[in-house]
Amino acid sequence: MTHVIFVSTIRYMANLQEIEAYFIQLQKEITQSLELLDGEATFQSDCWQRQEGGGGDTRVIKDGNIFEKGGVNFSHVHGKMPEFLKQEGRNAAWFHATGVSLVIHPSNPYVPIIHMNVRYFEMSEEENGAITDAWFGGGIDLSPAYPNEEDAYFFHTQLKGVCDTYDASYYPRFKQWCDDYFTIPHRKEMRGVSGIFFDHLRFENEDEQHKLFAFIQSVGNAFIPTYSTIVIRNKDKVFTEQHKHWQFIRRGRYAEFNLVYDRGTHFGLKTNGRIESILMSLPPHAEWVYDYHPEGGSEEAATLPFFQPRHWF
Amino acid sequence: MTHVIFVSTIRYMANLQEIEAYFIQLQKEITQSLELLDGEATFQSDCWQRQEGGGGDTRVIKDGNIFEKGGVNFSHVHGKMPEFLKQEGRNAAWFHATGVSLVIHPSNPYVPIIHMNVRYFEMSEEENGAITDAWFGGGIDLSPAYPNEEDAYFFHTQLKGVCDTYDASYYPRFKQWCDDYFTIPHRKEMRGVSGIFFDHLRFENEDEQHKLFAFIQSVGNAFIPTYSTIVIRNKDKVFTEQHKHWQFIRRGRYAEFNLVYDRGTHFGLKTNGRIESILMSLPPHAEWVYDYHPEGGSEEAATLPFFQPRHWF
Repeated sequence: MTHVIFVSTIRYMANLQEIEAYFIQLQKEITQSLELLDGEATFQSDCWQRQEGGGGDTRVIKDGNIFEKGGVNFSHVHGKMPEFLKQEGRNAAWFHATGVSLVIHPSNPYVPIIHMNVRYFEMSEEENGAITDAWFGGGIDLSPAYPNEEDAYFFHTQLKGVCDTYDASYYPRFKQWCDDYFTIPHRKEMRGVSGIFFDHLRFENEDEQHKLFAFIQSVGNAFIPTYSTIVIRNKDKVFTEQHKHWQFIRRGRYAEFNLVYDRGTHFGLKTNGRIESILMSLPPHAEWVYDYHPEGGSEEAATLPFFQPRHWF
Repeated sequence: MTHVIFVSTIRYMANLQEIEAYFIQLQKEITQSLELLDGEATFQSDCWQRQEGGGGDTRVIKDGNIFEKGGVNFSHVHGKMPEFLKQEGRNAAWFHATGVSLVIHPSNPYVPIIHMNVRYFEMSEEENGAITDAWFGGGIDLSPAYPNEEDAYFFHTQLKGVCDTYDASYYPRFKQWCDDYFTIPHRKEMRGVSGIFFDHLRFENEDEQHKLFAFIQSVGNAFIPTYSTIVIRNKDKVFTEQHKHWQFIRRGRYAEFNLVYDRGTHFGLKTNGRIESILMSLPPHAEWVYDYHPEGGSEEAATLPFFQPRHWF
């Protein structure tokens, strides 16, 4: 999966190898930490190759103490740019895309679903030729069935901290982007309590590239301390059938978002990605109840305002 | 919901009122028959209006003896043609769309899911002006978790019978169309055992319109005798947790198809349809297991060939 970079006619040089090495290391650290946290289940690794170029390592955990189903995927795919994506990049005939993508579905309804993705794209006019365009993208968002003030505030504080280290405009922009992106338009609600989302972060020179890569690493590295804290706070909370029922309904919304709107899912399906790696994001169990509304005054009804955009600071 | 028809500059005249009356009657007959069959649950009716014009009557059954969740919807929506559909019709500035759409999810894994839709579209350049284009569409398909030879053959025989009464070319064409349409490309399998599917059945004169309308009625009227037979054959079969598990996985595929590919679902979401009526098609309960393959030689593995296109005659 190594890749020789030719010095570009434009001013920056993207070091794909170094970026890829970080993503591989990040996947390793995250899976090890989640195994320790779970205390029972371990990740199963499936390495796969894509016919048109590249491949990945899909690591999946299931039926653990804490994690009912989860995937932490590394991939680096490359080849001819798919027709439907050509307009995204400048002179984008060939592409490399590498990143880590994860979704964790815990079994306790009080422990939130989490999603994170960090990725890097590089385009060229000729195969492995001069780079004509490149960018970073990613994001991290939390989808609790039972959001609480403390967790949601802590989560946004952590993300703001990461963002503010690099650029004071990042958090407000990327949080807004996340509110917009993870909204289920037909439900008029977000799939969770939002987080940050960003794409097409381009750079004009090596310094800017290094700064963005450092930012991406800070996002990736924030995952474990942030999510562990939230898991530990909630993992021993007692729950009933009714709590599971509500969790299943919220997971249904999660599946709706991913299958109808998520660009990552559609990118994977349209670029002949590995289906099981793409769809590992789907919940282990989901429910759809016709015209369901939680009872007024219930714990479930109290969660609804959390699924609307909100200023945390 | 009545609608005055102006004689068109083109050669046919679509009698929207008569067609709508049939759909309303069909919904009534189907819901009554399903209630009788179930013996316990009854349909709840929700009448709704669409802001931009028209509305519908959504009838939902749940937690019955046989039917875990099901919807039989009538709707007649009209107004300005949505931008994304304009290219479908000739001079299609304004539209009327009316039809019956149903999806039934039984609780016994041996009783198949069924879907049927019969619909009529009419377009005009001016609001309620001369009709510039009109067509019938529809289809009926069966999605068993445990398909069996006898049921699948019976189902296709019934549909072939309906089709052959009108045109010997219908069944082969519409069955092929159904095989293609209800295929989940990323799974390389159909969501069930297929059936018939057709769209844009246009007519050049009143005779042709009457013939197509009669065909649509025959499809609609075939639903009860066909599905009742299949339900009665299977409803008392004994099943275990493992059978429910497989049913949930197959329902996951059903949700994948409907959310990622189904044109009816996307039409509803994009035309500001009533969300709960559109998404009543989603299963009550679904599961996604990473990289699931039924054990070799199992009852589940034996069902897989049924999800590939097949010549029944």
